[in-house]
Amino acid sequence: RQSLKIGMLPADGIGREVLPGAKAAILALGSSIPKTEFIDLLAGFEYFTKTGTALPDETVEVLKSECDCALFGAVSSPSRKVAGYSSPIVALRKKMDLYANIRPVKSVSVNPEGAPGVDLVVIRENTECLYVKQETQTVGEHGKEARATRLITERASRRIGELAFKMALERSRKHLTVIHKSNVLSITDGLFRETVRAVPTLPGVNGKYDDVTVAEQLVDSAVYRLFREPEIYDVMVAPNLYGDILSDAAAALVGSLGLVPSVNAGDSFVMGEPVHGSAPDIAGQNIANPLAAIRSAAMMLRHIGYGDGADRIERAVDSVLREGRVLTPDLGGKSKTSEVVDEVTKRI
Amino acid sequence: RQSLKIGMLPADGIGREVLPGAKAAILALGSSIPKTEFIDLLAGFEYFTKTGTALPDETVEVLKSECDCALFGAVSSPSRKVAGYSSPIVALRKKMDLYANIRPVKSVSVNPEGAPGVDLVVIRENTECLYVKQETQTVGEHGKEARATRLITERASRRIGELAFKMALERSRKHLTVIHKSNVLSITDGLFRETVRAVPTLPGVNGKYDDVTVAEQLVDSAVYRLFREPEIYDVMVAPNLYGDILSDAAAALVGSLGLVPSVNAGDSFVMGEPVHGSAPDIAGQNIANPLAAIRSAAMMLRHIGYGDGADRIERAVDSVLREGRVLTPDLGGKSKTSEVVDEVTKRI
Ligand SMILES: CC(C)[C@H](C(=O)O)[C@@H](O)C(=O)O
Ligand SMILES: CC(C)[C@H](C(=O)O)[C@@H](O)C(=O)O
Repeated sequence: RQSLKIGMLPADGIGREVLPGAKAAILALGSSIPKTEFIDLLAGFEYFTKTGTALPDETVEVLKSECDCALFGAVSSPSRKVAGYSSPIVALRKKMDLYANIRPVKSVSVNPEGAPGVDLVVIRENTECLYVKQETQTVGEHGKEARATRLITERASRRIGELAFKMALERSRKHLTVIHKSNVLSITDGLFRETVRAVPTLPGVNGKYDDVTVAEQLVDSAVYRLFREPEIYDVMVAPNLYGDILSDAAAALVGSLGLVPSVNAGDSFVMGEPVHGSAPDIAGQNIANPLAAIRSAAMMLRHIGYGDGADRIERAVDSVLREGRVLTPDLGGKSKTSEVVDEVTKRI
Repeated sequence: RQSLKIGMLPADGIGREVLPGAKAAILALGSSIPKTEFIDLLAGFEYFTKTGTALPDETVEVLKSECDCALFGAVSSPSRKVAGYSSPIVALRKKMDLYANIRPVKSVSVNPEGAPGVDLVVIRENTECLYVKQETQTVGEHGKEARATRLITERASRRIGELAFKMALERSRKHLTVIHKSNVLSITDGLFRETVRAVPTLPGVNGKYDDVTVAEQLVDSAVYRLFREPEIYDVMVAPNLYGDILSDAAAALVGSLGLVPSVNAGDSFVMGEPVHGSAPDIAGQNIANPLAAIRSAAMMLRHIGYGDGADRIERAVDSVLREGRVLTPDLGGKSKTSEVVDEVTKRI
């Protein structure tokens, strides 16, 4: 690439405060990555309240036609149902076919007492399950009845399964846990489970995944065990909603949601996104933790081939965390968002 | 009542090892409760493998026509889909209209360092959500497609909401958190959320719930906050699947699933059930923790009017736990199931 175009979608709340940090970190890489252009794009609940749309067509068009990758901030949720509003992040994942949400959760440094740290990746299917948002409401004999469709397809389960096996193979422990609830949802989660487990038998795979050990767990007991013995997990692959819940649960184990990055990845596009939300309670105070967004930028860069740049950003973040001097309040520190960003960029 | 008939459904795995402990605890109450008869009833996956049915009609009939209440053990899940098998506990909840699953989670003793303990109740809607098990599979252009229906009705949301407000009012903190994911499921979870929140405005309520403070949280962030600051929760009310996951998550905070009891309650019947599963890995070794089952028996007794008996059982369990001498391996002890049962019954 001669140049790099990155779509920037800060959206709402602290999304707008953490994305500048991600931008600063990328810029700090200087000439080790191609000349980078940042394209500001509109989306979000606030934008919806002004215009009636949460994700303008133009944003999607520019992402598709001009951008090499993108960064998303965070989106606010209306507290009650707002007619015509639909989450722009859910829509983006589907419209850009970003079928995998990859969420690595890792303790900063080896635990001083020698207890095993957390080092896992949640791979969340990103396009279906209850997120297809096919909902209806009728009125029956006893009042309103609402129904939602949960869709699980072989195609989506297979491609997320292939990614999960691939990622497990790249990691030292090569362990994969398939998350489902097929004791209740025998058909939908049964399809997910069987399709993922069958990946090693697909034509052309030829023993490639022989070194991967596969386990499976019901989602309820997976959350329980995640708290009790997080060290048993390496790669976890899950349908959309379970993945949403599991990645938040895992984030709690490493001290703060403000540390956990993700990418939404498809076959031809990637969008970094911190796992945290828009945090309206702390928005506008310059105290949001920018590290999840900065790490998401690193993951995004790695995904499009700039692994060295990603390494430099990640090492800088880790060193700031290990030093523990310049931290935002969620980590027990007193520093501002901008101070943490400066501390990281200085070390890149 | 002149006498008490309790249906006993041990079902599978450690369910068979913990239910005798519950029975022993009830018997230890002696003449302070009516003469008690225990009726053994069949259900479970093992029973299914022998007979082709997991929940014989006779079990349901005897529960309905003869029993005052019941105790359920635990049920095994086949690891792969078995034609014709359907979870008997899910079926029982529906057939007996046990619409509320009440799961109190409480740390044993006040934390020595003075940190706030966990003291919450998960009230889980028990009859609908994805548990209606309406699933279909078709074959589309790209392979199999499976769909499940998630049903949320106003009626079920209202009655679980009423129970949640009632329970919140009875507790000292009088705090209720409504769990949902209405940022994605605006119609189904929107209906749940609005119906529960509207309970204080129902005709005839007349300010009864004015002292209850109500909060709400998205399920993903509820799990996150449950790990980080469990002390913020008092009563949590949730649709079926979220309640399933949340109660396991909460159980992890108090040391073991082997401690957490529940009742499945309807307007005219109650069935105690430990929250843990059938634990095939430890079944048959006499090391399963019987305390969740014993506590479930106490909750069941309280529910049908024997609060004094329930208190005696609960105090005995608490004292065994506080003393910490006779505990099963899940709590770091070396004692057998039967030794723990003896220790508890001695103190009743
Ligand atoms: C904002 C919301 C729609 C979203 C989700 O549920 O996917 C968020 O929780 C996340 O994890 O990215
Ligand atoms: C065994 C299973 C069907 C059940 C459930 O999901 O309700 C269990 O996990 C529980 O919590 O009682």
